[in-house]
Amino acid sequence: MTTHKLPDAERVSALHGLPGWQNVKDRDAISRNFKFQDFNTAFGFMARVALKAEQMNHHPEWFNVYNRVEVVLTTHDAKGVSALDIEMARFMDELAGQ
Amino acid sequence: MTTHKLPDAERVSALHGLPGWQNVKDRDAISRNFKFQDFNTAFGFMARVALKAEQMNHHPEWFNVYNRVEVVLTTHDAKGVSALDIEMARFMDELAGQ
Repeated sequence: MTTHKLPDAERVSALHGLPGWQNVKDRDAISRNFKFQDFNTAFGFMARVALKAEQMNHHPEWFNVYNRVEVVLTTHDAKGVSALDIEMARFMDELAGQ
Repeated sequence: MTTHKLPDAERVSALHGLPGWQNVKDRDAISRNFKFQDFNTAFGFMARVALKAEQMNHHPEWFNVYNRVEVVLTTHDAKGVSALDIEMARFMDELAGQ
């Protein structure tokens, strides 16, 4: 039941609580760019997210170069942003300490 | 000394030995798309590459979604493809078993 697409009002409300995240243009998805001290810290973040992703069976799309990690979250089964994406976004923000 | 840009002949020769890799359009870089069984296998590959990257102090640009990893290699200090990129490409191919 958590994989249905969030109603607009819930999504707006959830994004209010996730100030670093924004809607992706031309896709039903949300994104955030993280910047870390160095590659070690960036990949450490990715490793912790990867374990969480396996646990949730919900995986990010992400690009990394050195200390930057650019994340896009969407739920294919829901054809849009679901509660799983909000949960993952919150988890990432907690890890990144922001 | 390994960070100088490879002369064309050396690059062509090296790419002959790396059939999965190709030159990137509009950039002095090489790329390859890897496809794995699942996220677990893809991220396992990334983790092993990350350790190698720290050891070499030479880091890939990469995008991952589920079982796919799209890699771009270039050497910023050399403003192009250097022996470090060839070494990293070979390492990735070995890991990926191809």
